[in-house]
Amino acid sequence: MTVLRNALFIMVDQLRWDHVGAYGVSSVPTPHMDALARRGALMRHAFVQGPVCGPSRMSYYTGRYVLSHGARWNRVPLSSAEKTLGDYLRPLGVRATLAGKSHVLPDTDALDRAGIEIESERGALLREGGFTPIERFDGHSRPDGRSGYADFLRAAGYAGEDPWSAHAISVQAPDGSVHSGWSMRHAHLPARVRAEHSETAYLSDRAIDFIQAQDEKRWCLHLSYVKPHWPYVAPAPYHAMFRGAPQSPVVKAPHERTEAHPVVRAFQQHEESLNFGQDAIAAHVKPTYMGLVAQLDEEIGRVMAALEASGQAPHTLVVLCADHGDMLGDHWLGEKELFYEAAVRVPLIVVDPRPEADATRGQVLDPLVEAIDVLPTLLEALGADPDGWQHCVEGRSLLPLLHGRTAPWRDAVFSEADYAYRAARWTLGRAPGECRGTMVRTGRWKYVDWEGFRPQLFDLHNDPDELHDLGADPPAAVEREMRERLLQWSLRRKNRTTVPDSDVAQRTEAVKRHGIHIGVW
Amino acid sequence: MTVLRNALFIMVDQLRWDHVGAYGVSSVPTPHMDALARRGALMRHAFVQGPVCGPSRMSYYTGRYVLSHGARWNRVPLSSAEKTLGDYLRPLGVRATLAGKSHVLPDTDALDRAGIEIESERGALLREGGFTPIERFDGHSRPDGRSGYADFLRAAGYAGEDPWSAHAISVQAPDGSVHSGWSMRHAHLPARVRAEHSETAYLSDRAIDFIQAQDEKRWCLHLSYVKPHWPYVAPAPYHAMFRGAPQSPVVKAPHERTEAHPVVRAFQQHEESLNFGQDAIAAHVKPTYMGLVAQLDEEIGRVMAALEASGQAPHTLVVLCADHGDMLGDHWLGEKELFYEAAVRVPLIVVDPRPEADATRGQVLDPLVEAIDVLPTLLEALGADPDGWQHCVEGRSLLPLLHGRTAPWRDAVFSEADYAYRAARWTLGRAPGECRGTMVRTGRWKYVDWEGFRPQLFDLHNDPDELHDLGADPPAAVEREMRERLLQWSLRRKNRTTVPDSDVAQRTEAVKRHGIHIGVW
Repeated sequence: MTVLRNALFIMVDQLRWDHVGAYGVSSVPTPHMDALARRGALMRHAFVQGPVCGPSRMSYYTGRYVLSHGARWNRVPLSSAEKTLGDYLRPLGVRATLAGKSHVLPDTDALDRAGIEIESERGALLREGGFTPIERFDGHSRPDGRSGYADFLRAAGYAGEDPWSAHAISVQAPDGSVHSGWSMRHAHLPARVRAEHSETAYLSDRAIDFIQAQDEKRWCLHLSYVKPHWPYVAPAPYHAMFRGAPQSPVVKAPHERTEAHPVVRAFQQHEESLNFGQDAIAAHVKPTYMGLVAQLDEEIGRVMAALEASGQAPHTLVVLCADHGDMLGDHWLGEKELFYEAAVRVPLIVVDPRPEADATRGQVLDPLVEAIDVLPTLLEALGADPDGWQHCVEGRSLLPLLHGRTAPWRDAVFSEADYAYRAARWTLGRAPGECRGTMVRTGRWKYVDWEGFRPQLFDLHNDPDELHDLGADPPAAVEREMRERLLQWSLRRKNRTTVPDSDVAQRTEAVKRHGIHIGVW
Repeated sequence: MTVLRNALFIMVDQLRWDHVGAYGVSSVPTPHMDALARRGALMRHAFVQGPVCGPSRMSYYTGRYVLSHGARWNRVPLSSAEKTLGDYLRPLGVRATLAGKSHVLPDTDALDRAGIEIESERGALLREGGFTPIERFDGHSRPDGRSGYADFLRAAGYAGEDPWSAHAISVQAPDGSVHSGWSMRHAHLPARVRAEHSETAYLSDRAIDFIQAQDEKRWCLHLSYVKPHWPYVAPAPYHAMFRGAPQSPVVKAPHERTEAHPVVRAFQQHEESLNFGQDAIAAHVKPTYMGLVAQLDEEIGRVMAALEASGQAPHTLVVLCADHGDMLGDHWLGEKELFYEAAVRVPLIVVDPRPEADATRGQVLDPLVEAIDVLPTLLEALGADPDGWQHCVEGRSLLPLLHGRTAPWRDAVFSEADYAYRAARWTLGRAPGECRGTMVRTGRWKYVDWEGFRPQLFDLHNDPDELHDLGADPPAAVEREMRERLLQWSLRRKNRTTVPDSDVAQRTEAVKRHGIHIGVW
């Protein structure tokens, strides 16, 4: 099989799977993402390893579960020992280029111990999680006010020390009054930037510039959009496009508050949940979310058109995914972080332009796939030697599925949460190290182990909306099976990351070759 | 409570717990170790995290289970992200000094990625696992022939390029013929070095020199003996001291071969097991092992006398432990690596000279303790701030036990094995990543999960010699309990190692302070 030259790895922040048209239930038309799905394959059952930005992204970038990489919440520095996409691509001479958000924080403690200056070339790579940024933009202004996007806004005439706060996430009322987009009550007003100056357009521009500048050198671009993530602020005309239009229904039931699992109950008391729990607020914010998705779709169309026009599409693997979803009021919750499908299930499209992938082109594939599968998919497509990564990477390349090759596949997916940084920890009286939940989800069951509390259990066949938590009195056989799955999974994590399998195989019974003769008579 | 000034952390390689007199069943008198036990407390039930040198030591040095640190067998480099004793002591201005074996191998791949020269000061610390060696000696000659012990032997008149092989582990027959100590048939002959030039005496000398040279500066010395580990060669008079004396009985039964667990059976086919499985060979080697233990005991007495004479004993915590035991023919096995008590249970003595420890002085303590408890014991005794280590270290300080403070304590211990590097892998047809076993042991039960095979189960109340493996048909309730213990244990590993708990606590609900207002109406 030909090795692909390039990869375009698109991630969208906080995009629900059911807001992509190709999944068949979206209240927003997304013709460009749907076209992408037709050019490749759509994964019907794709799940992230943690339903919150940081852990999820670190799993995408390392190909490893959170239990393995340890970055359990946002802004937990990624261990310097964790290898990422950039490290694995380096032997191929391909750089992992970044435009947008990575959320990687450097392990400054380890850099200190190793005596590495963070401003050095090596330090920069570790700081950026192995990425070479053409533009790092995590979706909000940095304390030092420095960012390429801020400069871009200033150059476009949006003045101020922090043009992101003053324009990109500020809105203007018809009476001329200006308001902060942090307050969701203003979600119906347009952003104080034109659409072409919004974050989504800006990052698309950076990607298009990059794609157009490429010559014969191989490349891998991680285009990482920061929208439709909050603040829920859309530029005109997207802010108004879906106001009054049909919305996806809020999925919730009254008993979900009175009989909630303790951890869910604690999250329902967070400010974002109290607000999104009010139908009027959810209905007020959703059209803006939908508008942001519509804009995103158009921008993805623009990027794909540039890829086509550059002539590189036939040599480029394209992946489109999200780091997690958005509760948008479902189950009386805002934001994400828990294991409901709205948060943990994501859209995932893979376009392999090679003839081998014709076997599934345009299809919707059913197997359970995980975010950690994206990294090995990229590595296999670009031709990286598996011996360099298979002892670390816990995901599986999706290419066998795409190429219609029959192979044994997993029958469960796993995801992890840690609410130590949230008010829920205080509500529940937990120490920072005691706030973890672990989900296993099969085709039928979703089971969550919560440290110190009863589990959650949902029967997805009979209760696809996850309204009835059976975890207070789970069927014994189901619970036994789920806990056995968790055990097999947790005991088999790949932890011997400093030595590849080939080295182990070479050293099996090798001590005698080194003059060590154990137990000889 | 006063913080102790110093620590002497003695490790013995391959010393069985039942070969220390204070445990009450030893066939070798060990008056000096027994005296140490009277000065402190003896842990009756101490277990290592891996019954083989490398993984066990990495657990001692990191305070973490093998599942967490990942150095699953000998010469698997310790991840550069793993902090060790030396890292934790550094803020106190105390160096972790090493005399003897550490078995630490550097993570050269990570050093390369970070651009660190291994010969640099930082590189040296990472190479040595955070230790500052006064003498690193892993118990065999290095390929480059360089070692302080080799120089010492040459200076003492033992000539040759590799005086360790030619003298320390060579023996001389009465007819003057010289033989390699690698062949156990020569175990009854004396080493070609005098006792005072043996490895055990040499390392004691280095420790004594160090102790005598200390002034007011605080210190921590890891004195790490390489004997009674193979080659089974003892200098005169120890080689002959126990020949013909009563030996500990070989613990085995005929059905253990015919009905062996597949992994045990594969190990029984290793050369060392085929040899130690012959009673005559076990009986031939054991007196040498006993002699090495007797010599070790005298040398420990000499070191303790030097500590006393230096006046530092009242300010010094002393720990004596072993990295694992030695099968010596038990269960038809040589060497170690499996989870029988002969291999996984070790001697452990802790001497805390402070009045608080009078509560248990001279006692034998029953609680289940683990090798990973030694690191936090050292850190607490020397006054390290727990916030610097409690988010990483999985062991518990033994000082509450020693001080008679009632506190909840664990009721199970865990240990791990990986036979990927052994011929057993070929026998069993396993890939390098599929060779792990995990033990959980309570007061009564020992249960081992083996990847791809049935478990092992021993009822230690009714079968303390572990002759009857119930794992082929385990009582359902016991199996359920053991697997639940394994699950709780494996899900709760400490993986958020880049951020201390205090930082998490400080950042709980802190995003608003940084201008991020999620879900505000």
